[in-house]
Order: sequence, then C-alpha cells, then structure tokens
Amino acid sequence: MIVKISPRGSLDQLSQMEVNRLKQSAKSELYQLLRNCSLAVLASGLQSDNSKTLFDTYANFDINVLQRERGLLIELINPPEQAFVDGEIIAGIQEHLFAVLRDIVYIDNKYDNLKHINLTNASHITNVVFDILRNARVISPMKDPNVVVCWGGHSINPIEYQYTREVGYELGLRGLDICTGCGPGAMEGPMKGAAIGHAKQRVSNARYIGLTEPSIIAAEPPNQIVNELVILPDIEKRLEAFVRLGHGIVIFPGGAGTAEELLYILGILLNQANQDLPFPLILTGPKESADYFIEIDAFIGATLGQEAQDKYQIVIDDPVAVGRIMKQGMLKVKEMRKSLGDAYQFQWSLKIEPEFQLPFEPTHDVMGNLHLYFQPNKAELAATLRRAFSGIVAGNVKSDTIKLIDEFGPFEIRGDKQLMTMMDKLLNAFVKQQRMKLPGSAYVPCYQIVTPDD
Amino acid sequence: MIVKISPRGSLDQLSQMEVNRLKQSAKSELYQLLRNCSLAVLASGLQSDNSKTLFDTYANFDINVLQRERGLLIELINPPEQAFVDGEIIAGIQEHLFAVLRDIVYIDNKYDNLKHINLTNASHITNVVFDILRNARVISPMKDPNVVVCWGGHSINPIEYQYTREVGYELGLRGLDICTGCGPGAMEGPMKGAAIGHAKQRVSNARYIGLTEPSIIAAEPPNQIVNELVILPDIEKRLEAFVRLGHGIVIFPGGAGTAEELLYILGILLNQANQDLPFPLILTGPKESADYFIEIDAFIGATLGQEAQDKYQIVIDDPVAVGRIMKQGMLKVKEMRKSLGDAYQFQWSLKIEPEFQLPFEPTHDVMGNLHLYFQPNKAELAATLRRAFSGIVAGNVKSDTIKLIDEFGPFEIRGDKQLMTMMDKLLNAFVKQQRMKLPGSAYVPCYQIVTPDD
Amino acid sequence: MIVKISPRGSLDQLSQMEVNRLKQSAKSELYQLLRNCSLAVLASGLQSDNSKTLFDTYANFDINVLQRERGLLIELINPPEQAFVDGEIIAGIQEHLFAVLRDIVYIDNKYDNLKHINLTNASHITNVVFDILRNARVISPMKDPNVVVCWGGHSINPIEYQYTREVGYELGLRGLDICTGCGPGAMEGPMKGAAIGHAKQRVSNARYIGLTEPSIIAAEPPNQIVNELVILPDIEKRLEAFVRLGHGIVIFPGGAGTAEELLYILGILLNQANQDLPFPLILTGPKESADYFIEIDAFIGATLGQEAQDKYQIVIDDPVAVGRIMKQGMLKVKEMRKSLGDAYQFQWSLKIEPEFQLPFEPTHDVMGNLHLYFQPNKAELAATLRRAFSGIVAGNVKSDTIKLIDEFGPFEIRGDKQLMTMMDKLLNAFVKQQRMKLPGSAYVPCYQIVTPDD
Amino acid sequence: MIVKISPRGSLDQLSQMEVNRLKQSAKSELYQLLRNCSLAVLASGLQSDNSKTLFDTYANFDINVLQRERGLLIELINPPEQAFVDGEIIAGIQEHLFAVLRDIVYIDNKYDNLKHINLTNASHITNVVFDILRNARVISPMKDPNVVVCWGGHSINPIEYQYTREVGYELGLRGLDICTGCGPGAMEGPMKGAAIGHAKQRVSNARYIGLTEPSIIAAEPPNQIVNELVILPDIEKRLEAFVRLGHGIVIFPGGAGTAEELLYILGILLNQANQDLPFPLILTGPKESADYFIEIDAFIGATLGQEAQDKYQIVIDDPVAVGRIMKQGMLKVKEMRKSLGDAYQFQWSLKIEPEFQLPFEPTHDVMGNLHLYFQPNKAELAATLRRAFSGIVAGNVKSDTIKLIDEFGPFEIRGDKQLMTMMDKLLNAFVKQQRMKLPGSAYVPCYQIVTPDD
Repeated sequence: MIVKISPRGSLDQLSQMEVNRLKQSAKSELYQLLRNCSLAVLASGLQSDNSKTLFDTYANFDINVLQRERGLLIELINPPEQAFVDGEIIAGIQEHLFAVLRDIVYIDNKYDNLKHINLTNASHITNVVFDILRNARVISPMKDPNVVVCWGGHSINPIEYQYTREVGYELGLRGLDICTGCGPGAMEGPMKGAAIGHAKQRVSNARYIGLTEPSIIAAEPPNQIVNELVILPDIEKRLEAFVRLGHGIVIFPGGAGTAEELLYILGILLNQANQDLPFPLILTGPKESADYFIEIDAFIGATLGQEAQDKYQIVIDDPVAVGRIMKQGMLKVKEMRKSLGDAYQFQWSLKIEPEFQLPFEPTHDVMGNLHLYFQPNKAELAATLRRAFSGIVAGNVKSDTIKLIDEFGPFEIRGDKQLMTMMDKLLNAFVKQQRMKLPGSAYVPCYQIVTPDD
Repeated sequence: MIVKISPRGSLDQLSQMEVNRLKQSAKSELYQLLRNCSLAVLASGLQSDNSKTLFDTYANFDINVLQRERGLLIELINPPEQAFVDGEIIAGIQEHLFAVLRDIVYIDNKYDNLKHINLTNASHITNVVFDILRNARVISPMKDPNVVVCWGGHSINPIEYQYTREVGYELGLRGLDICTGCGPGAMEGPMKGAAIGHAKQRVSNARYIGLTEPSIIAAEPPNQIVNELVILPDIEKRLEAFVRLGHGIVIFPGGAGTAEELLYILGILLNQANQDLPFPLILTGPKESADYFIEIDAFIGATLGQEAQDKYQIVIDDPVAVGRIMKQGMLKVKEMRKSLGDAYQFQWSLKIEPEFQLPFEPTHDVMGNLHLYFQPNKAELAATLRRAFSGIVAGNVKSDTIKLIDEFGPFEIRGDKQLMTMMDKLLNAFVKQQRMKLPGSAYVPCYQIVTPDD
Repeated sequence: MIVKISPRGSLDQLSQMEVNRLKQSAKSELYQLLRNCSLAVLASGLQSDNSKTLFDTYANFDINVLQRERGLLIELINPPEQAFVDGEIIAGIQEHLFAVLRDIVYIDNKYDNLKHINLTNASHITNVVFDILRNARVISPMKDPNVVVCWGGHSINPIEYQYTREVGYELGLRGLDICTGCGPGAMEGPMKGAAIGHAKQRVSNARYIGLTEPSIIAAEPPNQIVNELVILPDIEKRLEAFVRLGHGIVIFPGGAGTAEELLYILGILLNQANQDLPFPLILTGPKESADYFIEIDAFIGATLGQEAQDKYQIVIDDPVAVGRIMKQGMLKVKEMRKSLGDAYQFQWSLKIEPEFQLPFEPTHDVMGNLHLYFQPNKAELAATLRRAFSGIVAGNVKSDTIKLIDEFGPFEIRGDKQLMTMMDKLLNAFVKQQRMKLPGSAYVPCYQIVTPDD
Repeated sequence: MIVKISPRGSLDQLSQMEVNRLKQSAKSELYQLLRNCSLAVLASGLQSDNSKTLFDTYANFDINVLQRERGLLIELINPPEQAFVDGEIIAGIQEHLFAVLRDIVYIDNKYDNLKHINLTNASHITNVVFDILRNARVISPMKDPNVVVCWGGHSINPIEYQYTREVGYELGLRGLDICTGCGPGAMEGPMKGAAIGHAKQRVSNARYIGLTEPSIIAAEPPNQIVNELVILPDIEKRLEAFVRLGHGIVIFPGGAGTAEELLYILGILLNQANQDLPFPLILTGPKESADYFIEIDAFIGATLGQEAQDKYQIVIDDPVAVGRIMKQGMLKVKEMRKSLGDAYQFQWSLKIEPEFQLPFEPTHDVMGNLHLYFQPNKAELAATLRRAFSGIVAGNVKSDTIKLIDEFGPFEIRGDKQLMTMMDKLLNAFVKQQRMKLPGSAYVPCYQIVTPDD
C-alpha cells in the first residue's frame, strides 16, 4: 500500500538539496530518524508504549520525500491503518508528519547532525531551543501568558484519566492553552477536556502543544488533538522547552518520568537566580490518588526540604481550584515578564544550570556512579536525582537503553542508605500502581537499588 | 447582581423602534418570551428538565436590551451563576443570548406576533421556516451536504450516553456536522464526541446546530457547544427545519419525544412524492439497548408496515458503521439535489403535508379525539400517531400543558384496541427505562390509554 | 450571449417565493427595476451620464434569477461587454449585481412595494433607512467613526479629478474610509486615491461605500472599487443615509447635484437640535478652482447667512490639510457619540425634519410653486433651495423627469428677484464650467429662472 | 527624535544572540548594513536616486534593535519625516523595516557573513537564493503561476509612467501579481495600476513583490505598495530570484539597468537546456516610445541574432494585449511545470550558468578587460554584454563604484569596433532620453567607449 500525503501545517517547501539529503541517505541516520519518527506519528492511535513492538510490527514501512509542482509530497509505504479514516489520512496526523519533517530538516540543516548537538555553552543551548521553537512557529509574541504545561503518567487509571479531563476542561473554560509531552494518559486527558472548554468559550485558536524527542516519540506518540508538535533533539532540550515556553505547570500522578520532570523544575526553581520568578506549579489528582501525592511530597520534603515544597501547591480533587490558581498565576507571570522586559512566550530570564542542560546518556557505568547523597545544595541534589529517574525512564521505554539492559542486566543505583530506601519505596509504589508501563504487561524493573550495606 | 453583556455572533444591531418595542413591552408577551428564553439559555448548565422549577428559582431574573455607541448591550439582573466562569459569561451562552434576541425580534418584526403564526398555506409555512433559518445565517449554500441530525432522549443511561459520544466522534472524524434539538443526553453526547473528531481533523468551521422552540427551550436548554442556535416559533416548524436542513438522521434511544420524531420523519418519507429522495435514517444504540430497537421496530412494523421499516436501518453497537453509512449517504443526497437543482442546504423538494405542518395544540378535547385506527394510508396514520406522542411530550415538559394536566387529569387516548395495547406497552417501556423524565423524579404519566372495551 | 453569474458578497439565498415573485413579474415594475439597476451596474465602465442612451443601446438586455443547488444564479442575456475581462465578469460588478438584487428584494419583501414607500412619520423613515443599511451589512458597530462622505460633480476637469485622487490618498493614508454617491468624477477619484493610501497602510478591510437610488444609478453607475453598494429607494433616503452613516463630509466642485447636497446638510446642521453635534464639513478643490468656492460661499452667505458659513471650512489646494482635519474631526465625533450613547455607525441623534425626508417629486407645477424667498428660518430656506436644485438635477439626469421637460418645456423657477438673480448666476457658472453634463454634449437647461418682473 | 517601532510582517522574534550581534557590532559591517538599508526604506518617499545625498542628509540617523516582552522593537533615532503620517509610521514602511532586519539577520546567521557569500557551486547558489526567498515567505506553493516581473527604468517620462500604470491595471484585472526591483518609475507604476485592478476584482491577497539588494536599495528604495520585500545579498542573486520566482517578464523603457536585465534573461533563455521552457517576455511602451524599442531590438538582433529576438514580443501601445499575452502565458508555464514536476513558485529547472551567477565586481581593471567581441556562443556574449552594462549601472548609482570613478575617471570599455559603435549609440540614446539618471541632474558618463582604432 502506497499513499501520497500533501503538506499541512507549517512546512510545505524544501530545497532540492534538502530533499536530496533525505533521499540519498536512505540508510543514513537522518533517514532512519525521519522514518522512525514518522512511523510513531502514524501509529498514534495504537494503544502501546512499546516502541520495539511498533518497529517490529511495521518493519516494512517506508517513507519518501518527493518534490512536486505544488511543493512537497510525503510518500508512505505500508503505513499503519489507524492513521486513516475510510482511506483518508487524519488531518492531525498529516500535520504531525510534516512537523516531524520540518524539525528534522531544520536541525540537520542548521546544526549539521542531530545526533551530535552536544553544545556545552549554556546560553548557546538556550538559543538552540529558541531557534527550534521559533522555526516551528510555536513562539507567538502577541499572546499573553497562558500556556499550562501538563505533566503526568502515560499509564494512569480511569479515575485519574477522567480527572485530567476535568482539569483540562476548567483550564479550557478559562481560555488557557495546554502543552504536554505527547502520549496517552495524563498527556491526552487535559487536551480532550480543554477542547470542550474551548469550544464552549469559542476559542478558535486554542493551542495544544506537544513537545517530544526522537527517542521517546515512538513510545509516547502525539495524540491528534496536538496542533503544534515540536520534536526537540534530546530530553534535556525538551525539558528546557517546557519550562521556557510554559507559564505554569500542572503535575498529575505518574511514574518515573513524572518524578524526573518534578525534580527538574524544582531543581531550577531552587536556583537562587530564579527565586523571584513567579511560576505556578500544582500537583493535583482525584481524591482516590491523594496517597500518591502524600508519598511524593514526603520524598521531596526529605530530600530537597521545605524550600522545595514551598514551590508547589497540592490540590486534591478540585479541578475548578486548579483552573483558578493557574488563571491568576498567569497575571503574575505577565506582570513579572513585563517588568523584566522578558518575552511573554519564551522565558529567557529563567536561569538553567548546565547540569540540567547537558544531555544525560544513561549507561551502566554512568548510572552506577551517580552521587546520590544528601547535600546542602538542593538544586544539585535535584539534578542528580533527576538523572537517576531519567535513566530509569530510558530503561523503561527507550529502545537503545532497553537493549543495554537486555545485555547487561538492570542498572545498579547506589547512594546514601536512607536515600536509597526512600527511592526504593517510591519506585515500588510506582510499580505497584502500574505507573511504569501500561497495564497488561508485567513490569520487569530496569534498575536495582543498591543500598550501601548490600 | 447586574451584568451587561455585549454582542457575540450574528446579531449586533437593532433599530430604535425594535429596542423600544422590547422595552415598552415589559409586561407584554414579547418581553416574557425574551425573558424566559434568555433564562433557559443562561441556565443551560443546570441538570434539570423541569422548566417550572427553573422559573420559580429565578423569579427575580430580569433582562433589558440597551442601545450603546458600539451597538447592543443586554443587561441581566440576577442571572444564574452557572452561566459564568470566574465572573465572566461563557462565550457560548453569550452567543445564545443574542441568538434568542435575534430570532424573537425577527419573527416579531416580520410576522407581527410570534404567538399567532398559524399559517395555513403549506408553501407559505415552508417559506417562513426558510426565512427564519436564513436570517439566523444557518443556510450556507457553499457547503456540501453534511448535516447529520441526531435525535434521541434527553434522559439516557451512561452507557447510551457514552455511545452517543462515540457515534459523534466517528461523524466528526468524517467531517460531518451535527444538528440536534438542544438539551442534555442524546442531544449533547454526539456534539461532544464530534468536537474531538473535528479537532483531530482540524475542522475549524464545524457546525453544532441547535434547533429549539420557546415552549421547550426551558426544559431542554442548549448546551454551549451549540454554535448555531435557532429558536423556531413552534414544534412543527422546528421539525420541518430539522428535515429540510438536515441531510441524514441518526436516532438514539429516547422516550415519547423520540417516538414523535421518528413518526414525523416516517410519515413524510412514506409520502409518495418523496419516495425517490435519498434520506439516510439510522436507528442506533449500544448492544445493551438492542431490545429498545426491537420494540420500536416491531411497533413500526405493526402500525406502518414493512414499507416504513424499509426507510431506516438499525445499527447495533457500531459507531464506525454509523459514520460510514452517513458519509456515503451524503453523496447520494448531493447527487439527487444536483439532479433536481434543489438547494444543498434547504430541501425544498421534500413534500410535507399540512397535517405535519399545522401546529398541534394538545388539549384534553383534541387528545381524546385522535383517530387512532389502523388504516391503509400509512402517512396519515403516522401523522395521527405523531400527534399522540406530541401531546404526551407536551404533558411531560411544557409548562402550559402541565397546568392543564394538573387541572383536568391525564389525557385520555383512545383508539383501536390492538393499537392501544401496543402503544401502552411501548409507553410503559419508556417509563420503566426512565426515558420520560430525568432519573430522580418519579414519573407520573400525563396520559391514560383507553382501550375500547374500557 | 447568455452568461450565468454566481453570487458574490452579502446575498446568496432567496426563498422560492422571492424567486417566483421576480420571475412571474417579467413585465412588472419590480422586474423592470431589477433589470434597469442591473444594467446600470453592468454598464459602469461606459463613459456616459445619459441613462436613456444606455437603455436604448441595451434594449435587448434581459435578466433572470435562478435557483440552483448551491444557491442563486443570475442569468444575463446580452449584457454589456465592458463588464467582462477576457470573458469573465469583473468581481466588483458581480458583487454589485447581487447588491442590487439584495436591496430590491428586501425592500419589496418588507415594504411591499418599493415605489410607494411614502412614509410620513419621521422616525419611521429613519428606521427604514437603518433597516436597509443593516440588511446590506453596511453598519458594523465595532469600527470607530471613520467614514468620510465625498460629494462633488460627476463632470469635473482633469485638474480637479487629480485633486480628488490626492485628497483620497491622504484620507486613505489616515485609515479613513470613503463613501460616495457612485458615478465618475468626484465620486470615483477619492476612492482610487484612497485605494493607494490604504495599500500603503496595509488596510485590508477598507470600505468604499456607494449609496445610490434607482432613478440615478443608470446615469451615475457605481465604479467597481465600491465594495459596499446600497440602493436606497429614493433620493431623500439616500441623502439621509449619507448623513447618518458618514462621520464627515468633503465637498469637491460640482454642479446642481452638489449644490443640492450642500444645501441639504446645511439645512440639517442649522437645525437648533443639531447645533452641538460635531460634523466635519470641508469644501475643497485645487487652486485653479478657488473661484468656484468663492461663488458658492457668497451664495450661502447671502442666502443662509454667516451661521451657515460657520458650519464648513474651505480648504484650497491642500490635500494634507483635508486629511488632517477629517482625522481630527473623527475623534470629536467619537467623543460625542460616546457621551450620547449614540451608535458609532448610524447617527440616530441627528435631527432631520420631514421637509428633508419626504420624497420630492419635481413636476412643472411643484417646481413653479416653490417659495423661494429670503426668510429668517434658514433651515427652511435651505430645504426649499434644496428642492429647487433637486428638481434641476432630476431634469438633467432622471429619465422620467427628462420626459416631462421634453413635453412641457423647462421648469420655471420663481421667487424673490435678488435670490433669483443669484441662483441664475450660480447655475450659469455651472453650465459654463461644464458641470451640468459630461463635456461633449451641449447642455440645454431644463429650467428657466423667472424673476418677478418678467 | 526617537521613535519605537513594533513588528509588522513576517518577523517578530529574534534570539538573544541575534540581538546581541546587532547591538555589539555598532561599528561593524553588519550594523552598517542594517542602518543603511533601514534608512533607504525610511526615505522611500523622497524623490532621489542618489544614495550619497541620502546618507549625507541623514548622517545623524541611527537604529537599535531592542527585545521586549511582546518581541522585537526597532528604535529609530532621527528618521526621515517622510516615513510618517501625522507622527505615525506608514505601515508599509514599518513592514519593510522588519523585512530588512529579517533578511540581514538570516543571511548573517546562516552564511556567517553577508559580504563574502561568493559561492562557486552553481546549485549551491541556487539553493541560497531559494533559502532566502523561503525564509521571507515569498514562496507560496499553493498559488498557480501568476507573478509578472516588471523591469524598466526608474527615470521615465510621464507618458511612459502612465503607460506602466495602465499595463499594471490590465495585469491586475487578470489577477496577476507584480514583482519589480523596487524604486520609482517603471517599478512603481505597474504596482499602482495593479492595485486598482486588484481592487475591482476583489483580489485581497494580491502580491507586490520587491526584490532588491544592499548596494542598490538606497538609490531605488521600495515604494510602500510593495508588500513582500526581500533583500538579496548581491545583484546576481537578485537577478536569479527574478527569473526563478517570476513566471513572465514585462520590460518597459529604461536605461543601462534595463539593458542589463534584458541581456541577463536573454542569455539564460538562449541556453540550450532552457529552450523548451515557456517564459513569456514582452517589451512594451506607449507609441511615443516606439523608437526606443526599435533601437533595442536592432541592437539585440545585431549582437545576439534572430534566435534571441524570437524570445520576446514587442507590444506597442496596447496594455490589454500585454495583459492577455501574460495571462495566456501563465497557462503554458503551469502546464510545463506540471509536466516536469517543477515547483510553481520557484523554477528549479531553469539552467543558469555560473557566468550569470557569480558576483561581478566592476573595477577599472575588470571593466577594461571584458571580451566584447562578436562570437557564435550567443549566451556567452550576452553574459559579457550584461557585465558591461552592469558596470555602468554601478558607476551610475552604487556609492562604492561612484567613488572609484571619482578617483580614477570613467571606466574604459573596449572591444570589437562595430560592437563598440553600437553600444555607444545605444548608451547615447539612453543619456539623451534622460534614462540614466532622474531629470534635473546633468548626467556625467561613468564610462568611455574605446573603439579599437582609438
């Protein structure tokens, strides 16, 4: 089955050189990147968080970029059927295909090779993130602050899912836009809810922003409501995009990935340079999930202290309150940006240290040597903890890391005994609550907590 | 509490004479009509199908129409809180308020007095319906046929409700627009589902048409997704608007109102003049509701015969099939309209007999003298049966009729014994399945089936 | 030659009854009205101000209104070639055809018969004018005051024409919209100039409003830049539309028609009820035309006095000054409307006496009995003088009146000797300057000034 | 006088690094480039083709790029008054300022340094041209071929100017877009005419494309009707942009620059690789300018032969014919692009040899050593002749070259005796007809034709 797809969205033209590079490199990394990200986008209707399964199922999938008199065409060979309705591609998926192409070509063009953007200059990295977002036309200076980032697990239970919809609905009713990391669960619910809220408020230019990256897109493909999809080159640039683009963050229940995200934002907000920047941060869930937040909150308190706990509010079972707090928070954000002359749509003034920017590549060696000890510099501890959880996420969902685990066994995570016990407890809770993987598949941990006495 | 609301939607200007007529008539019928319809629209968030309760609760609600330098303002005194989010009116409700004003002023202007449009010339009635729809800008000639009318109960169970959403989603994915009679249940679910489908397909000009009339709007207020609301003067013109504007009809489970609607469309389609007109008509529900359709189908078969049964398809538990059948049906509708030169957006060629057009005012006298007998002219039988069910709906939800019932007891419905038995059975099933009223209130029948032997 | 034209602009739907009325009445007044106005619009490229010539040349022109699946079609039989570019109708003319249809159907629908709207109630007349403008969607409440009415002759010399373009350019550069009476000369130049000014200012929704009426449209057809064309039923309603819709007036050199318009606005502004309403009024022309304004000013001074002269400013050879005065005047207009709560787009608060509203039908009898005497009530004198000039315009360009003159000879105009001498002098100047008719045709006066001694 | 200008058009965001580079480099080439191009754009209302005068007059002009919460601001210090209407900048100029900034930043970003793009790989150069145009959003793949490039002198007489307007009007009436090299005269007239034609045809997205380059923009600043302005890095890339972007070319009378352009396009069309590509090319002027074309045509015939003459049509005094030929030509262009799969908006398939792509820097040395001899390879002769005229243009208007001439005297141009005589005759005619410079300033030739015998 061969289908030709015409452009939709922000890309419709490539130069002959750009097309040639994509063509000639049929066995190149660039081409593989394009193929795999495109496949992920096409498979977004599938219920799975296993990218290996996906790639195996569609081993005979192929993609070509063609140039025609009216611009680009994408040719799909053996694409997943789910992407089509009665033989026609779903418009949202069509848009996502061209977003993938746009970002891959742009990064390749500008930074030569996507794989090796390993810039060490902090301000340079920030400019790269800005560059990619601007090229994706995600930065629209005329809008007031109103982007709410929603983080949370892709594997949540139906009650939690319904709750994320209700929160999304209240955000939408207040004209707020939604930004998530793509994927199902807590990344999808708020968008669906917001869509209804926006419809009732006749918000015709509502934004459903999805930020993803090549190694995660196959496990957490964008749902088709996402109408601004950006593929950042790596997880750190994606996280930076979240916190510079978003004006507030709502965290729903989740697993290791959500913990990573919480530690990331806390580590940044704990930076002295950022202490005066308003940044509404809410942890919320239905009353059935209250325990989850008690646990997380205790972990944060014990590791990062009261100061870190002061950075967020926990709201249990009250979508309206979440909506109101976010809406009011936007005004404070706007005021501060105005007083600093900082962009409404990209928070240049937020200080992010290199330890949060430099790509973290989890290997057995690196994971075994994280310095997981209590320490007075809370921001640094947050950074190290973030890496530990990041490695676990990679071991859960990223195909390269999964291969490593398959070969060398689980990562060993070492550190202070008490800290290790706390991490173990938290991770076990995630496993028990089926937050690590979608229900149905038994979870085999990719890590092993090694307490000093062992 | 006093709020001033500025215009939104298709009305923003009135002449001084028009404003004066609304002002001076504070105790007039016209003013009461405006007040009550506006209150209904404002209360649309409330879970109730009892207009009396509504009017009692908001007895101190008042409305004024003001003229200002930038056009109209509507002043609301003591409006229901549900209409507001953090103190600001929901845009959908704002639009509905001005739609109410628009239609009331228009009909008053053009036909002198809303109450007494009792035109007896069939073609004149059709032109009035067209006129009102055109003035509401609901007729957009450039669109291809794609309006699916969804009928069904306002009181349906959660499984049925979820099913209506799924059908709506499949319709939306196929770019079809939704038209309902406003209100909750089967009138709301398809719109919510379609909103998600439309979002995924990037349909930015999706239509959620709501057709209502003054005596029913308070019991079944428009949900705020409705973005084209029209208030027709009476139930018959509303039904005519449905079948001339819509290009296909989906019927979900419902009570007496749904039966009325099914009998209405069957009565028209059985007209010899209409036999060649394609009109996709589907009865559908989840598998749990299969019995409901067996019962309805049997009733139609026994009363109107196989010919009537041939006019519809019953689809059980298959939203995708509903979507496909409707989508394909649209092509046939388009083809026929083209070959007849008939308007895509208003089916002039559909023949509607006066018995389906003339307003039916149910009183004890009239209801007692319906000629409910088997007869060879199936269209006529359908018309009479339609009236019977219409009277029951009125007795259930229209405040004027409820008063009659309170005073004189239930309507007595007489006719052929076998027919009466069948009606009784059907109505009892509706009652038992809680389709007559929202659950929570015990249903006291407003009718009594009198079999000849009694 | 038969061409079918599809809708463009604000009309695309008629009811079957409306179409039938247009069809059946092939020999009716309504049909003739439609045919003649449509012909005028189609012939707008022709250089002629003689409607008789037009009708004679296109005696075999015919028009039909058809209903098709996508709405209306207009069928033209033997239309003027000038309306087409390489076989396709010019979009502006296409729009005008449907504007004609829209206004004729609307007035016919609502007021039964166009010919006989002879309403005597002042406020009712004003509401009719509003109604017609609203139906034509010319009243857009969200815009600030910025409509400059340009009056002046259709027959002006090239230097004056160039000057009207430059004034239009300066108005356009300041974002002001243009409203004229259609036709060539001073009604066209400002629009062309403004189009360039608007283009430079990226004004994408610029308005070029043309107000005309059936008896004058053939002599002064709308140029195709006009993007909002309205056909008012008679000259008085057209004049009322100008002064209620416009926020300021610029008067260029012209003949009897321009004098009529100047007297009309002065008569209204002299009304005590209007004395506080700001209404920027400028008489302007190139330095070569300075004498013209000296003459007019002297006539006004001698007849209506200093008070009337105070209502306008004369600006010679300074387009920038005209632009600035108008722009500043808009702010005062806005302020006053706001303080009165009067509509920005329709000046309800302007008091217009019946003598300026009631249709004036010039016959030999009526023209012979105008009371042209000096009198203290300047507004009344202005009204009478206005009628005198109106009769002369009719004798110059309206086909019905021309027939009267052909049969019974020129109108005799009587009155105070000194006044008659002044009028005679002014009219002679118009004739000598070729302002009465387009150059090329020798002007034969349709009037005769009779001084008392004669 | 200091004014802050907010963004308009296609640029509104810069990264901090980009802003810094513009800031820090206050005395750098990049900054000077920005300053000078911005000044040119601001001075576009001035009647002058002398960039030196401009720079001297506004020696105290300065510009800063600021970053604010809603994006960029441009700060102007002592800008020319002509750019403002009543204190507000003209929107067209505002747009041009940001177009200048956009192109300068883009080229600087991507190609490191504007001055030294001296790429020698033909396909690479073409990709750079594409890149710049795409970044300026000038390439819109969904439009059918309809861009008519208008070339001709900036110094033409009033009859010729009026003629260019009429041609523009006929092009506009046919929905064709206009692309010129900016500046007054033949580059402005067609746009003004087209604006009226487009208005009559309700073309709301008409394109007025201006292609310029840094060394010429001050002498020929864009008029404000230009709504898509692009600054290409040098004259050769600008010429390439013309012929890849445009679908047809109209050449009006002009001087050395026009001759350069004609030789350029002929040289390319004479390339065997291009012989089947349709490319409508018309030389046209009013009947008063017929001699001009006889002369040019003779020169082309004598130098490049009949084959070259076959590439163009000469149309005298017939704007309608020009419109028709272009309109019909577009269909052929579309057909060919379709059959080749070549882009509608960028003609990749046109073969351009390096001799037409590589920047030509005229110095006394280089100009003295052009090989101006008759030769069988007509394309090569065209290239050499093109360079000769290019050098003369530079000597006339580019400030750097003018300095060279001031210091070392006129360029000496050598070659075949007969060829030199013909060039001399042609150039003398240009001088006599005041086509080299705007009237008012006596023209002092920057060249000297040296025939072999001298």
